[in-house]
Amino acid sequence: MSESQNDWFTLRWSESGVQLLDQRKLPAKEEYLTLTSVETVAEAIECLAIRGAPAIGCAAAMGVALGAARSTASGVEALRDELLAEVFPRLSRTRPTAVNLFWALDRMRGALDELVAQNSSDVASVRQGLIERAEVLLTEDQGICRKLGSVGATLLRDGDRVLTHCNAGALATGGYGTALGVVRAACEAGKQISVLADETRPLFQGARLTAWELQRDGIPVEVCTDSMSGYLMQRGEVDVVIVGADRIAANGDTANKIGTYSVAVLAREHGIPFYVAAPLSTIDRTLADGESIPIEERGRDEVAHIGDRCILPDGIGVRQPAFDMTPARFITALITEAGLVRPPSADGIDRLFR
Amino acid sequence: MSESQNDWFTLRWSESGVQLLDQRKLPAKEEYLTLTSVETVAEAIECLAIRGAPAIGCAAAMGVALGAARSTASGVEALRDELLAEVFPRLSRTRPTAVNLFWALDRMRGALDELVAQNSSDVASVRQGLIERAEVLLTEDQGICRKLGSVGATLLRDGDRVLTHCNAGALATGGYGTALGVVRAACEAGKQISVLADETRPLFQGARLTAWELQRDGIPVEVCTDSMSGYLMQRGEVDVVIVGADRIAANGDTANKIGTYSVAVLAREHGIPFYVAAPLSTIDRTLADGESIPIEERGRDEVAHIGDRCILPDGIGVRQPAFDMTPARFITALITEAGLVRPPSADGIDRLFR
Repeated sequence: MSESQNDWFTLRWSESGVQLLDQRKLPAKEEYLTLTSVETVAEAIECLAIRGAPAIGCAAAMGVALGAARSTASGVEALRDELLAEVFPRLSRTRPTAVNLFWALDRMRGALDELVAQNSSDVASVRQGLIERAEVLLTEDQGICRKLGSVGATLLRDGDRVLTHCNAGALATGGYGTALGVVRAACEAGKQISVLADETRPLFQGARLTAWELQRDGIPVEVCTDSMSGYLMQRGEVDVVIVGADRIAANGDTANKIGTYSVAVLAREHGIPFYVAAPLSTIDRTLADGESIPIEERGRDEVAHIGDRCILPDGIGVRQPAFDMTPARFITALITEAGLVRPPSADGIDRLFR
Repeated sequence: MSESQNDWFTLRWSESGVQLLDQRKLPAKEEYLTLTSVETVAEAIECLAIRGAPAIGCAAAMGVALGAARSTASGVEALRDELLAEVFPRLSRTRPTAVNLFWALDRMRGALDELVAQNSSDVASVRQGLIERAEVLLTEDQGICRKLGSVGATLLRDGDRVLTHCNAGALATGGYGTALGVVRAACEAGKQISVLADETRPLFQGARLTAWELQRDGIPVEVCTDSMSGYLMQRGEVDVVIVGADRIAANGDTANKIGTYSVAVLAREHGIPFYVAAPLSTIDRTLADGESIPIEERGRDEVAHIGDRCILPDGIGVRQPAFDMTPARFITALITEAGLVRPPSADGIDRLFR
């Protein structure tokens, strides 16, 4: 077990609501929020108190459970109507790129239908059932990360120096992580692995979150600015790149945190393997390729303001895509809980689902 | 003339000392420092109150003039000995990568020898001569930038969207700029040019300085994080890349602000021309290639702290190379005041000096 499982958690269900570690405050403060309404869960996703594709999915599922728990509907049909009219739509509007959000909401929608069919007159059982399904989804996500980690760990050699971008760790999932799950599994298998974390502007998820959680686990980590990865690859200081994903198209094209595409181009230039680690729930088989993955644009302030400091002159515009799309041809392999796809291809991805 | 020549300046000589715009404070405050000792000039270069290879050269020359002006030596030989024993060594220790520093000190050393030979008993004339030479060097630098700008402007088409990294503008030179001098010259020739400025972590010279000086000149400019340039190239939003340089080896390999190499690799991947604009004083013909260009490493705090905010957990190490090296093969052309070298080659560079 990763130590991080012991003294902190990303999110969990509790009697009083959805509890989650407020990732905006890290690394300066470890503060947990207890969210007691669907609206505050939606806002926590929007403002990035919780982020990372699998973690967003888990949070959305818990948002549905919370909507059911807090509902005053006295009948099963009324509960169902309320969830479908208000709760699901609100949660699905939070963020557009990570497909795990929609996947988790679909799972909860299916659970709702099942529970309604099984308990057509017992609204308490439907409520309790939805809470249990959300908790199962979280536990499953942790198990998937461990499985994916052990699949990916075989790709790492003792002594490897792994570059990662953004945070695809325990904080981005129910626990353990995708890209960092691979690193953790390799470390647990006795390999010496060190991590170089791109700081990941504009919101510094690499510097703030990846560094924080790896330090907690005693895994060696250093931080560099996003602009340094090319230089460090040129100098032979990077053996492998592993990143997570927010949405993978049927052909393997991958949307992930802005800057991932640049790292992929640089890795190929230097002959360095570039791996994408993600659960099957991140694969969107309805999209043939990455061109139609929606890329969220966020606000100017996230680039312009850092703490008390404004780095831009008044009136200067910024570009603020939160994600980019890496074509499958730059990806050495996809690492999933159902195995590797090496190189990524529509056929190879299709086989994961059989 | 660029408007920026009218209401602000990068540095100048004055009766009371070396005056310069404190670039650490931009864009929030426009504050000029008046430096009255060699030591404060050296510290201003070290702490980046003034930066940019040609501007560092001008500042160092003025530091020598200031050393002469403030010296209490009563004889020419004593003045010369003092400058050689204290002033030149102090200024040459400030920053290692930009060769213009050493070039400017060599120029001033030559001027000192000449002036001593001409005025062997007149210490006041030697002092005055050194001040004049430093002022000439500044004026020449401005003229060189204008010439280089007009050479480079022919490469830009009406409507071009130019990506630049760091600040190679009026603030990085005696005035007008190198990469931004090319942009200014194209605008003055009636072309519509817009600029996309990489913010340039860790010190945000693109967001703070390039945006500030282009806004002052009314040239359209937007800022993106360093991690966004690959995405914007992929989307067809960049027509040309132009950057400055801190040191160019005899074969065209170019050291420039950290992140330049990544931009060059991305530009080649997307078939976008990548130009380096620099005066001949940035070319170090003593180095056959870029491998031996010294790359300055700066401190952890520049990455870890931004204003009041520390983005890193305690105890996390950072990498902090301030520059990187772009091999000549990634460079479409060098733009100098003596003409283009397209593509860069040892022969082509050699011809510039004939």
